[in-house]
Amino acid sequence: MKKIINNVDGVVDEMVAGLTLSYPDYVKRLHVSGAGQAMVIRSVPKTGKVALISGCGSGHEPACAGYVGEGMLDAAACGAVFTSPGVGPILECIKTIDAGKGVVMIIPNYSGDILNFEMAGEMAEEEGIKIAKIIVNDDVAVMNSTYTVGRRGIAGTILVQKITGGAAEAGLDLDAVREIGERVVANTRSMGIALSACTVPAAGKPGFNLGDDEIEIGLGIHGEPGVIRDKIKTADELTEHILEDYILKDKPIESGEEVALLINGLGATPLMELFIVSRKVHEILGKKGVKIYSTNVGNFMTSLEMAGFSVSVLKLDNELKTYYDANARTIAWRVCDK
Amino acid sequence: MKKIINNVDGVVDEMVAGLTLSYPDYVKRLHVSGAGQAMVIRSVPKTGKVALISGCGSGHEPACAGYVGEGMLDAAACGAVFTSPGVGPILECIKTIDAGKGVVMIIPNYSGDILNFEMAGEMAEEEGIKIAKIIVNDDVAVMNSTYTVGRRGIAGTILVQKITGGAAEAGLDLDAVREIGERVVANTRSMGIALSACTVPAAGKPGFNLGDDEIEIGLGIHGEPGVIRDKIKTADELTEHILEDYILKDKPIESGEEVALLINGLGATPLMELFIVSRKVHEILGKKGVKIYSTNVGNFMTSLEMAGFSVSVLKLDNELKTYYDANARTIAWRVCDK
Repeated sequence: MKKIINNVDGVVDEMVAGLTLSYPDYVKRLHVSGAGQAMVIRSVPKTGKVALISGCGSGHEPACAGYVGEGMLDAAACGAVFTSPGVGPILECIKTIDAGKGVVMIIPNYSGDILNFEMAGEMAEEEGIKIAKIIVNDDVAVMNSTYTVGRRGIAGTILVQKITGGAAEAGLDLDAVREIGERVVANTRSMGIALSACTVPAAGKPGFNLGDDEIEIGLGIHGEPGVIRDKIKTADELTEHILEDYILKDKPIESGEEVALLINGLGATPLMELFIVSRKVHEILGKKGVKIYSTNVGNFMTSLEMAGFSVSVLKLDNELKTYYDANARTIAWRVCDK
Repeated sequence: MKKIINNVDGVVDEMVAGLTLSYPDYVKRLHVSGAGQAMVIRSVPKTGKVALISGCGSGHEPACAGYVGEGMLDAAACGAVFTSPGVGPILECIKTIDAGKGVVMIIPNYSGDILNFEMAGEMAEEEGIKIAKIIVNDDVAVMNSTYTVGRRGIAGTILVQKITGGAAEAGLDLDAVREIGERVVANTRSMGIALSACTVPAAGKPGFNLGDDEIEIGLGIHGEPGVIRDKIKTADELTEHILEDYILKDKPIESGEEVALLINGLGATPLMELFIVSRKVHEILGKKGVKIYSTNVGNFMTSLEMAGFSVSVLKLDNELKTYYDANARTIAWRVCDK
């Protein structure tokens, strides 16, 4: 294992230390966490609005701590690498960010995350905090995977965080923010392809092995098996396959409808390759008459140093566009145009 | 070679197609380029100001096209992979972006880039366009490397683009923008470490090989040899080595002085590891009483899928801070705070 770390037990602690030292205007650490995990909140809390928390195992940076800040999350619960954050720290985080308007929990669909967030949410409700939850399950690759009942939550989670964040900042109430988040989930589909595995520091070796000409289609962001192990194909063939045979088959987009795209690198994929994928996505959707309202290309939800990519397609409506366009000032997502 | 591409000859063309389709509000392609290269300009040209062009071989994305837009570059010349852009396309680009106030060429110090930019600049001057040039040589690893006379230009180039971009947008004239750019160059030092090589698509195999426990200290972003091939060490040891023994030795920073930091991933480095490096940089500089004004952590100037990182330290003064803080709206660098 060749990594730029100090010791495997300290990676999350040191990562969050670096994150908060690097971006003190955006984020600070909440000092409640257990070993191997960390809670990150806004440096300048915003009161008078619904608060948003999301979380997942670490190793998916910039998710989720990179999306804490104005217009997006109020807190991110960063578990140990590829491990759900604990109930106690999540609860402390919820109690810290609640400003009396309630807290929305945005949870990617993994059984461990659901369990811990729901338990923390119930305990918060017992203390009088209003709680709503949004479970993100955008990955159309497989149903009932290694760590999930139902579909997994992957990069589409960031779109949910962006749009609910905009809605909360605009002053919508708890039910309205939840309803909008659920609409984003209902309108988002994603799927990915991996070219190589990643190595969890504590494991010390890759989670699986792929041959020099092999790829895994529909692989999960923790290395869970996908649909099929296949031979490498061209960028256009791979893109067409996941878009036409999975994403658009599951959620058809009609001519004239508008979408936002997220072309996401899994950690070790050159931006050049992501742009080549984006070009094909635009070509395919363009031929169908689908209007592409916005595209973001980069590393938004990664899997350590995994090579590969995912494509997320979100069908927009006017209300979703308003909150998608709203200002956001976070480490990894900034909107200041409109 | 396992890459998400269609064919090796088309990577730059398809990459730039994807880039401009993905971010049409920021960039468009200038249709003058020769095979294997591409020129990218702002979608909405800004007149009445000094224009800025930078360029380099492709494969360093988001550099340089990701920095074209309000507050930074007016144009980026994207050569073939790791190959200097050609004289003719650079000249066309200069002629297109000149708004009568002259053009500043920001050139990372590689002999091929210098040669082609200077020739294009001379031809532009013959046509009556005022030209200034800034040569960036921030890499303190080696003097007179494979492709350079003197030190190489690496990620510090982005800081030059940001600050000169802010100065040009504020209305400074050609000489003043050049002077500020030269000050940034004089105040910036960088150095990197590689954990693995990258594969140029047309070559089809990695540029060099490193053992499972080997790293190359001071490696160039095209795979040029560095200072020494060494065994992997801890993140703290690596960071301390390049910062104390190279960057700060070459350019001491005194207690009370202010710096901007760029903790840059080379393409395949998890953000987690970059944050761990940033933590140590903050610790070292903090102990010396150096004030860290701003830190950016991410993939700013890459080397395809090379694993590794570089650290850049820029000593600021009040004027540089003003232009560093100025608004920027580009694909890969956005400032909307101040």
